[in-house]
Amino acid sequence: MGRKIFKKLISVAEAQKKFFEATKHEQFKKIEEIPLTQALNRVAATTLTSPIDVPPFDRARMDGFAVKAKDTFGADEENPVMLKVVGEVMAGSFFDGELQDGEAIEISTGAPLPFGADAVVMVEDTQREGDEVLIFKAVTPGTHIMSAGSDINYGEIIIRRGTLLTARELSLAAAVGIDKIPVIAKPKVAVISSGNEVAPLGKPLEKGKIYDINSQTIHDAVINAGGEPVHFGIVPDDPKLLAETLTRALQSCDIITISGGTSAGMGDILHEIIDNLGEPGILVHGIAVQPGKPTILAVANEKPVIGLPGYPTSALMIFDLFVTPVIHQWLGLRHATPREKVKATTPSRIHSARGREQLLLVNITKTSKGKLIFYPLPGGSGAISTLSRAAGYVRVSANVEFLPAESLHDVHLLVPRDEIPDLTIIGSHCLGLEIIIDELIARHPHIRVSNTNLGSFGGLSAIRRGEADIAGIHILNEEDGTYNHHVFTERDKKTLLLVK
Amino acid sequence: MGRKIFKKLISVAEAQKKFFEATKHEQFKKIEEIPLTQALNRVAATTLTSPIDVPPFDRARMDGFAVKAKDTFGADEENPVMLKVVGEVMAGSFFDGELQDGEAIEISTGAPLPFGADAVVMVEDTQREGDEVLIFKAVTPGTHIMSAGSDINYGEIIIRRGTLLTARELSLAAAVGIDKIPVIAKPKVAVISSGNEVAPLGKPLEKGKIYDINSQTIHDAVINAGGEPVHFGIVPDDPKLLAETLTRALQSCDIITISGGTSAGMGDILHEIIDNLGEPGILVHGIAVQPGKPTILAVANEKPVIGLPGYPTSALMIFDLFVTPVIHQWLGLRHATPREKVKATTPSRIHSARGREQLLLVNITKTSKGKLIFYPLPGGSGAISTLSRAAGYVRVSANVEFLPAESLHDVHLLVPRDEIPDLTIIGSHCLGLEIIIDELIARHPHIRVSNTNLGSFGGLSAIRRGEADIAGIHILNEEDGTYNHHVFTERDKKTLLLVK
Repeated sequence: MGRKIFKKLISVAEAQKKFFEATKHEQFKKIEEIPLTQALNRVAATTLTSPIDVPPFDRARMDGFAVKAKDTFGADEENPVMLKVVGEVMAGSFFDGELQDGEAIEISTGAPLPFGADAVVMVEDTQREGDEVLIFKAVTPGTHIMSAGSDINYGEIIIRRGTLLTARELSLAAAVGIDKIPVIAKPKVAVISSGNEVAPLGKPLEKGKIYDINSQTIHDAVINAGGEPVHFGIVPDDPKLLAETLTRALQSCDIITISGGTSAGMGDILHEIIDNLGEPGILVHGIAVQPGKPTILAVANEKPVIGLPGYPTSALMIFDLFVTPVIHQWLGLRHATPREKVKATTPSRIHSARGREQLLLVNITKTSKGKLIFYPLPGGSGAISTLSRAAGYVRVSANVEFLPAESLHDVHLLVPRDEIPDLTIIGSHCLGLEIIIDELIARHPHIRVSNTNLGSFGGLSAIRRGEADIAGIHILNEEDGTYNHHVFTERDKKTLLLVK
Repeated sequence: MGRKIFKKLISVAEAQKKFFEATKHEQFKKIEEIPLTQALNRVAATTLTSPIDVPPFDRARMDGFAVKAKDTFGADEENPVMLKVVGEVMAGSFFDGELQDGEAIEISTGAPLPFGADAVVMVEDTQREGDEVLIFKAVTPGTHIMSAGSDINYGEIIIRRGTLLTARELSLAAAVGIDKIPVIAKPKVAVISSGNEVAPLGKPLEKGKIYDINSQTIHDAVINAGGEPVHFGIVPDDPKLLAETLTRALQSCDIITISGGTSAGMGDILHEIIDNLGEPGILVHGIAVQPGKPTILAVANEKPVIGLPGYPTSALMIFDLFVTPVIHQWLGLRHATPREKVKATTPSRIHSARGREQLLLVNITKTSKGKLIFYPLPGGSGAISTLSRAAGYVRVSANVEFLPAESLHDVHLLVPRDEIPDLTIIGSHCLGLEIIIDELIARHPHIRVSNTNLGSFGGLSAIRRGEADIAGIHILNEEDGTYNHHVFTERDKKTLLLVK
């Protein structure tokens, strides 16, 4: 078994700088025009200006009568002015003529002001009498009128190039009548899983195999970043097949990812294959980060090629650091949205290895005062179940030996902010507890429950430190050899429930 | 023109309670099974348990030799133990036999532990000599082994019913080999625009018409809430056509929205049509909220029917209050995600009308110390350009007459949290300023600029109150009648730039 030593590890920041500079020219590569109804969450390819005034005409803000303001001067409740009603104009229609002195036109909200009129008298301040109307209130020019272009001017910028198109921008485009919009085409991102042990989903597992998690994890990460995943399936550890698949991916996709096979051993072979795909080849192999050390960053024929770790959770965090920014760069996204961060406190001192940045998977709980605290998850990035319990990760710098107790850190959220749990349970794994949680959720549908398996003693410690609301522990009954499940609460530190 | 007086306005909370209770039975109506790769952001229809152990077998954590631990007892650098190598097992394969006393099998990371072995000795602690291997370190049973089921147990709950499926949940499903997942079908939400003045996008406007903004605004709001928009186009203010369209929508959709035509006047007719669509008919008409008073909430043949305001911004805020929760309820979403909220301060006293809840559109700026402050936007919900400048809205209770200066309030964000601007410009509208902003963004792609048109004096006041970083004002040159554009900055309160 060949073993590769990574001789020169470089920092995450250095690796990012090197990689993003080498992939910069991908910006604004393809533009496509799509209907407005398909444009949500796409990126504007051009800066759009308004082809019209909004409103397109002077518009009545009220139901009433369009008049020449000077005809109403001096009118009040005691001395109404009488005007001749020469027509009616409703929203969506228009008055085909010109208002003369001494005339009025009945007008409804949203209707265009007739030519010659310069104000609207509210219907409440008038009294219709046959072909005439009594005006009980004087108005000045402009009263109850929304002027043409007062909302949006002809020529005004409505959407800037590189803007993520949300409901706001698209409403504005609709307001000026735009029904198709030029957007940056989503980059096609190749998703390749590698490894002899990796098997497709949906079929019984053969002996010695595990299911292909990464194809799904990377698929979703690509979509979240704004790319279009293209699947190349699972490739066994066969140099010829790996080279063929990577070459095919390079021909049809804009960005290439391959996961697994990056550890020493198969890593040597994959390194050589990627390096030979095209110029300039591998830029970075070996990053001072844990997990993710064997990550490969390469460029072949101007296309980014990324070798991701085999463990899904590691692959996801490395994707955040190196692939998401490349996709955002490719899209020319002005305001690239990284993962949301929250500030949280570690209740106890956490040790970290010096010399490597550590991506520490953590859970977050709220104290009764609403303060957020985090603690590292057992299992690390190798266990897939860790991912389902992780609220996010903390980046611990390479030169930090430990995080002091009570220190405040950024947590990069893997979940929406409001998924931070209301109720945190830490303790032994117990199927009975799952049933109770299910029942709790059925009764209180909006409650957010986090259940972390830290073992009995971990659970008790968590309660003592105020990290958990409830801890479940197993206690061996020495008489019959069975375990009782005790559930403790924060408040009383007493047994709440016994599940045998 | 008929005019309807809304006699009995009810509060938003009362209206929500009444409406959501009447639409509750829609929960869990349709289930569909979809591929895992299409399941991102869908809602799990059933609680899924793991059909396998993960890992499915005792797995080597290291490259090395699988052994019986007892054979290594006493081994150290000085006194290595020699074992006979009887085979090799790589990840993805398995050893078809049973390890006997005194034997070892070469094993790679991820490979299944051969039957009879109970530990792995790291390759670093061994020396291969032909068919034999020297073991330099004693191991205990379980060393460097990840036990079957230690990550995920057979029967363990991996996804709960009603969970929003993110990359985390889908990775977990993949880990246990699930490739199809039952999800709640998206509710089909009818989108109907009404009004004689409303015209389709993409064609020149006829005289007196305005473009249909709401179809786009509601389309995007439906998608964001998790529904599937179904368009029924623009219906003129014709009772027969309105009734026909609503009836068609009721036959093919799960939730019906119609915007416009809800003000007094056409409101009477629409009220009657909706009330006659099916039992029980209109539940709420007239809500003590500004904007949104004429909102109609009805149920016809168990389907929610919502009459939204005609102004897009109003329609969007009312959609938040009444349609998004109904879609979430329909989906059975456990953790319904409302709009994100941030706490922000108003620098000056804001008056509010008593007797109605007010949905106050606001912009947010950051002070140099990072504190968030908000101020109401001019233009209100009637101007579409307001929406593009609004960061969100503040709900001001019906019984509040004013918000005191320096008071803290929740802002319901209409934009992603990180879109809160870095640079806020308030002042006169100026096309020249737009060109400068464009240039600024070209040089600093990640800067977030907000440019609000508040008029010259609004801009100067905003600078004085510390709300804006830059203000643009126009000053009339009395000699030639032209305007000079002065740009002021916070720091020096001096002219930064003159654009003639």
